[in-house]
Amino acid sequence: MRSAVRVGIIGFGTVGSGVVKILVERQELIRRRLGCPIEIAGIADLDLKRDRGVAISKAILTTDANRIIKDPEIDIVVELMGGYDPARRYLLDAIGDRKHVVTANKALLAAYGEEIFSAADAAGVDIGFEGSVGGGIPIIRAMKEGLSAENITAIYGIVNGTCNYILTRMTDEGKQFSEALSDAQRLGYAEADPTLDIGGADSAHKLAILANLAFGTPVSIKDIYTEGVDKVTALDIFFAEEFGYKIKLLAIAKLADGEIEARVHPTMIPKEYLLSKVDGVYNAIYIAGTSVGETLFYGPGAGAIPTGAAVVSDLIDIARNIIKGDAMGGRVPPASFLQMSRTPLTVKRVEEIESLYYLRFTAEDRPGVLSKISGVLGQYQISISSVIQQGRKAGGAVPLVMMTHRARERDVQEALRQVNQVNYVSEPTVLIRVEGPEAGEAP
Amino acid sequence: MRSAVRVGIIGFGTVGSGVVKILVERQELIRRRLGCPIEIAGIADLDLKRDRGVAISKAILTTDANRIIKDPEIDIVVELMGGYDPARRYLLDAIGDRKHVVTANKALLAAYGEEIFSAADAAGVDIGFEGSVGGGIPIIRAMKEGLSAENITAIYGIVNGTCNYILTRMTDEGKQFSEALSDAQRLGYAEADPTLDIGGADSAHKLAILANLAFGTPVSIKDIYTEGVDKVTALDIFFAEEFGYKIKLLAIAKLADGEIEARVHPTMIPKEYLLSKVDGVYNAIYIAGTSVGETLFYGPGAGAIPTGAAVVSDLIDIARNIIKGDAMGGRVPPASFLQMSRTPLTVKRVEEIESLYYLRFTAEDRPGVLSKISGVLGQYQISISSVIQQGRKAGGAVPLVMMTHRARERDVQEALRQVNQVNYVSEPTVLIRVEGPEAGEAP
Repeated sequence: MRSAVRVGIIGFGTVGSGVVKILVERQELIRRRLGCPIEIAGIADLDLKRDRGVAISKAILTTDANRIIKDPEIDIVVELMGGYDPARRYLLDAIGDRKHVVTANKALLAAYGEEIFSAADAAGVDIGFEGSVGGGIPIIRAMKEGLSAENITAIYGIVNGTCNYILTRMTDEGKQFSEALSDAQRLGYAEADPTLDIGGADSAHKLAILANLAFGTPVSIKDIYTEGVDKVTALDIFFAEEFGYKIKLLAIAKLADGEIEARVHPTMIPKEYLLSKVDGVYNAIYIAGTSVGETLFYGPGAGAIPTGAAVVSDLIDIARNIIKGDAMGGRVPPASFLQMSRTPLTVKRVEEIESLYYLRFTAEDRPGVLSKISGVLGQYQISISSVIQQGRKAGGAVPLVMMTHRARERDVQEALRQVNQVNYVSEPTVLIRVEGPEAGEAP
Repeated sequence: MRSAVRVGIIGFGTVGSGVVKILVERQELIRRRLGCPIEIAGIADLDLKRDRGVAISKAILTTDANRIIKDPEIDIVVELMGGYDPARRYLLDAIGDRKHVVTANKALLAAYGEEIFSAADAAGVDIGFEGSVGGGIPIIRAMKEGLSAENITAIYGIVNGTCNYILTRMTDEGKQFSEALSDAQRLGYAEADPTLDIGGADSAHKLAILANLAFGTPVSIKDIYTEGVDKVTALDIFFAEEFGYKIKLLAIAKLADGEIEARVHPTMIPKEYLLSKVDGVYNAIYIAGTSVGETLFYGPGAGAIPTGAAVVSDLIDIARNIIKGDAMGGRVPPASFLQMSRTPLTVKRVEEIESLYYLRFTAEDRPGVLSKISGVLGQYQISISSVIQQGRKAGGAVPLVMMTHRARERDVQEALRQVNQVNYVSEPTVLIRVEGPEAGEAP
């Protein structure tokens, strides 16, 4: 029996401090589950001065990550510094040194996952990344192990707490985007530069990871169509409610006929769906499969301690392998499917998808406009399921809102291009994709 | 590399057929995740004639379970016959023969879990029981592995689809219990003899398993206070709505100050809680912990294919160990904590718990009754947070409904005993426990 499993941590920031805190405070719990302690053998960070509010020996601190990577006493290297490089290099070096690795770096995995997974697979070491998606929700393990017998057909995720918080405030209080964003920043739910969150890129990173695990194929971040929440208006949230929907930023991946859809955008979903009820900074991932039907995993999407606990669950997992013997690395393939059994699948261009659509035209309030607009839609085989025409603003522009039946995105885009050019339409038409029963999905 | 992992199945009923169907139809998926096939080496059942709608060789069928247990070619024995004996004996014999085992038998694990877990631990074999709780929801694995770094403080589970279906129909359509039960039976959501489900015993079995994994202690089924849904009336559901609550059959376990609460009963929860929105035959398990805060796991609670997929996920898990070598059995302790590190904790008697209470008195509609009843409650330190008095039925009995602040169950029981004896109260008072913000919980 091992007397201890030793970890080295690179990056002593928010999540790093959370991991250290949990490892220090939960020693007894970990010992009861694992049979031996997990010892922190080293922590590398450029800032060794700042107080992280956790008592650790100064002797294990270093500014040199290579001392962690090369330390023969260390079993597992934990990368929590974020960013692409040198994080990527550190992980590959640690793997090259036959150390198991753990990371919560979704941007890195979305961009360089293939390289890192292949390296881990070739070296026969484990890679844990439970902290990369859904914070404290054990979604990675659910997809790699819990749902391992499942033919997963669709994923719908609320995977960015900042965006969900903003949309929740806009929905509950009728606030505009900029106001809700300011609140989020004041409360620490949004960064000073919130671009990565509100622009949707963070959600796309997470979707790339989830789709990879679900469908057994690498998914490139550049193939994921991405729209953020910054264009969502209080007016559209109001109309969504009128139609019985809520607007959520969803990360959507589907597999049908050997092709994948992978996209991130504000989405209207029926307000009675469980996903509609996931509010504030919480995350939830809905997974549909041919055996299980529908499942949903809900919890905190971020935070030092929830994400830290996810990282420590990876450490316990790998430590359980280490205790059982050196041959145990790679017990579960990095990306759920054996590396050699993963099949590259085509990701559809967004123009090829089909969806229901919410369209908000800003049109002059005069006779014949509804007929003209619906005429253009009809030319493109887009049929309308309901209309809200609010009016009377003598001579001025008013919103004209339509929900469509299932239509092809390309047709909708073409039709809108045509409508936007006519003189009775005064602003670019707003398009929001809608998921609902008619689309054959029921998150 | 193993050329195959071989399983023997005892019990070719509903779930057994689901498992076989998945193993047959998903061979390619399993191979892509595992690297080798899972072969069905034998199936034992007393009925070899009935068509299960799945193509398997007759040569692997037997009526003799011992042929499965003793077959040296079989790596994993799957017990899906249900009941206590001989299922218990078969599992222990298979473990004694150093075979890994998988079961979905919650009644057996609730009653004999300690014996079976200890035997598996001593033999160094794995035991999988993902199918025993929450059907297709990978909740067992979440508790043993995903939340392994977590100090779990509370579990609130909707773990019986039959009861949840009945309560949903009663809530949505104002039906009485007997009517909703008939519907459930007609639709196949309730057994002809529904006692085990509607009486709450099935939920208690599942709670015993979950509390065991959460708190690292054996929990005896007889220490779980259990009430079913059969006493819930449409009237109480109506009043619950008036107060902003829904009634769900919850399996509740909490750990505080080194003592456990474990109970199953109809419970009012605020209607905006996510658990309130889990309807129909679906299950959900809410888990609170000191790092993760709140998590919720939602999915189908039963059914041949969802539960079958859970069983097959156990097979893949164990097969991943087998492929890595014989030493891998027991990588994860049977009950999440090492057997030797589990600490027996006291389960509080229900009289000792504290809760909020909904009380519905059936009292004569005359002056002074409210004052008298609240006077008795006051004697027992029970304070009232709100009252609904519906009236005027000249001289007749009317419902008088109260919500209490936090109170001790023993006091409430004593007070009701006293109130029920007075002549202006014409029927035994209805008591429904309430979980909500004041109780310090927020599922």
